Amino acid sequence: MIDLLSDTVTLPTQEMRQAMFNAEVGDAGYGEDPTLNRLEALTAEMLGKEGAAFVSSGCQGNLTALLAHCPRGHEVIVGDRSDLYDFEAGSISVVGSLVLHPVPTEPDGRLSLDNLRSAIRDKSDYQCAPPGVIVLENPHCQRGGRVLPASYIKEVRELADEHGLALHLDGARIFNAAIASNRTPAEMAKDFDSVMFSLSKGLAAPFGSMVCGPGPFIDRVRRYRKLLGGGLRQAGLIASAGIVALQTMVDRLIEDHRRAQLLAEKIRDISGIRVEHPVIDTNMVFFRLERDGMSVADFLAALLQRGVRMGTLREGVVRAVLHYLVSDDDVDESANAIRSVLQAGPR
Amino acid sequence: MIDLLSDTVTLPTQEMRQAMFNAEVGDAGYGEDPTLNRLEALTAEMLGKEGAAFVSSGCQGNLTALLAHCPRGHEVIVGDRSDLYDFEAGSISVVGSLVLHPVPTEPDGRLSLDNLRSAIRDKSDYQCAPPGVIVLENPHCQRGGRVLPASYIKEVRELADEHGLALHLDGARIFNAAIASNRTPAEMAKDFDSVMFSLSKGLAAPFGSMVCGPGPFIDRVRRYRKLLGGGLRQAGLIASAGIVALQTMVDRLIEDHRRAQLLAEKIRDISGIRVEHPVIDTNMVFFRLERDGMSVADFLAALLQRGVRMGTLREGVVRAVLHYLVSDDDVDESANAIRSVLQAGPR
Amino acid sequence: MIDLLSDTVTLPTQEMRQAMFNAEVGDAGYGEDPTLNRLEALTAEMLGKEGAAFVSSGCQGNLTALLAHCPRGHEVIVGDRSDLYDFEAGSISVVGSLVLHPVPTEPDGRLSLDNLRSAIRDKSDYQCAPPGVIVLENPHCQRGGRVLPASYIKEVRELADEHGLALHLDGARIFNAAIASNRTPAEMAKDFDSVMFSLSKGLAAPFGSMVCGPGPFIDRVRRYRKLLGGGLRQAGLIASAGIVALQTMVDRLIEDHRRAQLLAEKIRDISGIRVEHPVIDTNMVFFRLERDGMSVADFLAALLQRGVRMGTLREGVVRAVLHYLVSDDDVDESANAIRSVLQAGPR
Amino acid sequence: MIDLLSDTVTLPTQEMRQAMFNAEVGDAGYGEDPTLNRLEALTAEMLGKEGAAFVSSGCQGNLTALLAHCPRGHEVIVGDRSDLYDFEAGSISVVGSLVLHPVPTEPDGRLSLDNLRSAIRDKSDYQCAPPGVIVLENPHCQRGGRVLPASYIKEVRELADEHGLALHLDGARIFNAAIASNRTPAEMAKDFDSVMFSLSKGLAAPFGSMVCGPGPFIDRVRRYRKLLGGGLRQAGLIASAGIVALQTMVDRLIEDHRRAQLLAEKIRDISGIRVEHPVIDTNMVFFRLERDGMSVADFLAALLQRGVRMGTLREGVVRAVLHYLVSDDDVDESANAIRSVLQAGPR
Repeated sequence: MIDLLSDTVTLPTQEMRQAMFNAEVGDAGYGEDPTLNRLEALTAEMLGKEGAAFVSSGCQGNLTALLAHCPRGHEVIVGDRSDLYDFEAGSISVVGSLVLHPVPTEPDGRLSLDNLRSAIRDKSDYQCAPPGVIVLENPHCQRGGRVLPASYIKEVRELADEHGLALHLDGARIFNAAIASNRTPAEMAKDFDSVMFSLSKGLAAPFGSMVCGPGPFIDRVRRYRKLLGGGLRQAGLIASAGIVALQTMVDRLIEDHRRAQLLAEKIRDISGIRVEHPVIDTNMVFFRLERDGMSVADFLAALLQRGVRMGTLREGVVRAVLHYLVSDDDVDESANAIRSVLQAGPR
Repeated sequence: MIDLLSDTVTLPTQEMRQAMFNAEVGDAGYGEDPTLNRLEALTAEMLGKEGAAFVSSGCQGNLTALLAHCPRGHEVIVGDRSDLYDFEAGSISVVGSLVLHPVPTEPDGRLSLDNLRSAIRDKSDYQCAPPGVIVLENPHCQRGGRVLPASYIKEVRELADEHGLALHLDGARIFNAAIASNRTPAEMAKDFDSVMFSLSKGLAAPFGSMVCGPGPFIDRVRRYRKLLGGGLRQAGLIASAGIVALQTMVDRLIEDHRRAQLLAEKIRDISGIRVEHPVIDTNMVFFRLERDGMSVADFLAALLQRGVRMGTLREGVVRAVLHYLVSDDDVDESANAIRSVLQAGPR
Repeated sequence: MIDLLSDTVTLPTQEMRQAMFNAEVGDAGYGEDPTLNRLEALTAEMLGKEGAAFVSSGCQGNLTALLAHCPRGHEVIVGDRSDLYDFEAGSISVVGSLVLHPVPTEPDGRLSLDNLRSAIRDKSDYQCAPPGVIVLENPHCQRGGRVLPASYIKEVRELADEHGLALHLDGARIFNAAIASNRTPAEMAKDFDSVMFSLSKGLAAPFGSMVCGPGPFIDRVRRYRKLLGGGLRQAGLIASAGIVALQTMVDRLIEDHRRAQLLAEKIRDISGIRVEHPVIDTNMVFFRLERDGMSVADFLAALLQRGVRMGTLREGVVRAVLHYLVSDDDVDESANAIRSVLQAGPR
Repeated sequence: MIDLLSDTVTLPTQEMRQAMFNAEVGDAGYGEDPTLNRLEALTAEMLGKEGAAFVSSGCQGNLTALLAHCPRGHEVIVGDRSDLYDFEAGSISVVGSLVLHPVPTEPDGRLSLDNLRSAIRDKSDYQCAPPGVIVLENPHCQRGGRVLPASYIKEVRELADEHGLALHLDGARIFNAAIASNRTPAEMAKDFDSVMFSLSKGLAAPFGSMVCGPGPFIDRVRRYRKLLGGGLRQAGLIASAGIVALQTMVDRLIEDHRRAQLLAEKIRDISGIRVEHPVIDTNMVFFRLERDGMSVADFLAALLQRGVRMGTLREGVVRAVLHYLVSDDDVDESANAIRSVLQAGPR
């Protein structure tokens, strides 16, 4: 099967398995896991932040980061089509005593300055939950993996400063954004107080994410990590795969981007398909199915029968995600499968 | 001063003060306050619900009701320009382990069926906070006191039933809506599982709101009331004013509505004023200030100097709220003051 | 009926009703209620604190105070027989993201220094919720209304300082303690960062409590008061009764104390009764029922038939609470009723 | 170094590393990780429960289990010297809207029936947080690894049933208890609604714990696992080590128990040492240091210089924990080191 469902399906590489096999570990509960410590130091350096903490998932990374930023009762301003808002079970509010304040997500993944500005409530008014932090997502998953412009990020930074707010990046796929922008991860991170990114997804580590930021902030992240039960004992076993991910899987992401563009090209002229985003910045292709009588569910099922798996995040729209297990030939085959399904038509 | 800032500025009537003076009271902590019990029974009957509980404020009413409806982790679907979302400090999330899910508020106060439908997340998906309750506001404060159509409410009820959701009414000013619709409060409440309304505001009791709904739900509301510290000992002293409010202040609300229309008529043709809502259903007039060089703050200050107080809930828009302390002459005087401020122009 | 169930059954005095009838009020939501403002200023002065906030109940007072003291995740060290731990529904934890850490309550209401010391967890250990505040109760309700020694309080203050903890007083009946110690309320309050006391109970206001402390702390209390729905609109109506309570009901508490001692004396030699506390400091008498075959429930029922109501907070123990509605004759009659019930014996 | 600090310091075995190297994995976010599914099925079967869920840690296991048992606002009755109460950062209250209700822990790890009974608050009283669940710990870590009698557990089960409460087992080291009792894990678990145990500690998996219970309960656990960010993508990599732990590390625990007894015997007659618990049931030895002028910190430091690490959980008491990396010779050497430190005496 060619699996384009998500880049979360990536399997660890042989080199990662070897690193895990050999990993030197200790009890991280006492700070004695050398491999974990190495991963955290390496990450902080790559992201240009004072500290970094390994967490179990992107969801846990965002949750610990926002708890570390905001005291009880503050608002978290976030895009209404962000993964944090849609796919993290509202944990910020459910367990964090914080209020989610969604603002409209523009087609390119930005939150407009005007919308952000009007979402910032008056801190002095007891009727309002005071604002605490703005969250951006880059690249923006539900907006086709689009990369935010550096100039836009700078403007949001200024707005945050003006109102004394923290600025957090859900950078689950930050390395995709960096590669696509031809910039370093540290450059991508520099306007943010904190950044979360995933070691899994395109980088193919089995699981785990990193939260990066100032030292005292990272201390608080670690405290919340323990509180959520996310402190892993001999964490180095997994951290070792994370190190390999950072060392071997970043540069090759450009291949995934190239293949995403290739796939988009190959299907752009298929009747019944409308590719959604004008530009493919990273490793995702979204396309709208415009064929009467064929639902997305039907389409996906027919595709699966032809050995290709894709998914959907939004009614009427199909998503294909490229990653290191998908080759140029797989792209060809996937495009052919799509064509074939649409030619066959509704049953 | 003619005070049109809000109907929350209403003072208790002489009859209320007299009732409070004479009120028979007991320790409500032991269920022994006869006047409180009378108010709760009277309210349940008027609203056509099994039970009712007196709470300190509309904010506490909505909070206890939503806690009573939703277990930990559920979503509360609510309008993005609702008072619950904007002016209750996010308490549902901060103290209630619930997620606020705002949807766009239409110009007439409705939440469109389409928007509601797409806000209802998939209960079976662990990535999503499951939906728990839909909240409507009627009349809709930030939409000019507009009254929701009965047919619309029925449609939302059906949608809620289809998805197994509760339906709560923030009916802070439900009697205004009832009077405006020429329907009974029970008719206004019948499609809802629960209703909150205020005894203060247009009804002029010093403070307090009621939550109405099924018996076991009201038991839970009372439990949460205690938990939030909202159990009042000799509550009957205030409840007595609430009884007078329900008995003497409801029918006269039609006067406030008439005066709101009167005020709108009188200012509609003033240059620099644009009355906001096509129809004035209840006791509020919103108008946009369209005079270069004059900010709303300047306008309100100048108006205050002429003895008239109004307020603002939204950039560029002024709100005047009618209530029993404002007479026909006051309306004349207010319109004249507005005209005079605009003629004087920016300083 | 002679009602010794609790001093929460006290009814407002005529003077209070008159004050409420005449009270000048405004919209406290805009800070415009002059009577509320007067009560808060008067209280702050009496307690020797920078500020004071009116809240609906003792439960709400303790809750807002502890939220204002402690960020998310801290421990509240409190007596295991305190009213805060036993009768406030765990609200500190349920809605406050704080951990209740009970320590044993000594027979005289103190929490021993040793027990306090060992309850203070290591702030640097991520496995532990860091300590935030110590709460004392004075006088101590479940320990017979006993008053804490000033020297003891000073020692706890030093311990708190040593560990950087806040010290909060649940002083629901602080005026009873002050009168009993022949000290001013400000003297009783001075070693504490914050104090909660009730205007109801012995002071007979219909309901409401005050939280007193530093100015910025009181700002936070007010914010939490709004969040919990405890902001009352024309609060002055009730505040006026609170002012009368502070001005007219404090000095007379000594009568309640005298009558409590009188009652204890009168029943001390009744066979089947063992008065519990060696000293009666304030307005409560606890006695253990030592009569085979007669349960406390039976005893209380038989007493009620003779026109006297008492209650129980602990298995096998009866509590009688004196207050301004109970006269010397009532004490006589109550003692006689007890004697009569015990002579009649089990049915 | 001979490391007796805790059994959390155990390193994964070669066989585990090999299993991880070879593990077949998939995206557990879509339920597609075959190794994770196998571990969960195997565990459910071993524990005799309908379902099981892998979580990151014992802390996360207890937290998800108690959230799954108790709606908002309930009490969790737990020992005051339990690891859940002392070392899990109060997470049940901080993020779970539940109240921790500690009761005294007897010297053998039991919570007395009387103390449990008096901790069960009246569900009908709004002043009280209603009871939700009782938690036992078996074996009991802070009570020397003592194993609870089966007859006692049955009594607690009956008490729980009588009051409609759930009964949860913090069985972090349940296999130690089973081996020590010569019973199966399922027998150890059968009186409990749910059980948490660790794959790390004595079983030496790198990290992870299991929560076992009825099917719908496990569904809720999985939902909370996601909410806390504890959903691991290619979890099978770690699950594979867990399977090896269950298959190869259980029976050998008896060796750790034998060595714990051996160590206790060897140090029992050293002057200045008092072994704490009359019986060594499992893999821990606690001893009190009774040497004037030598603090536990001094003792531990001197011991470390001789190449032996132990720890302390309580003032004045040293703990040594046996595990698979400690041999008979290591026990000899450790006893000798202790003797040597005490002979050298305080510096």
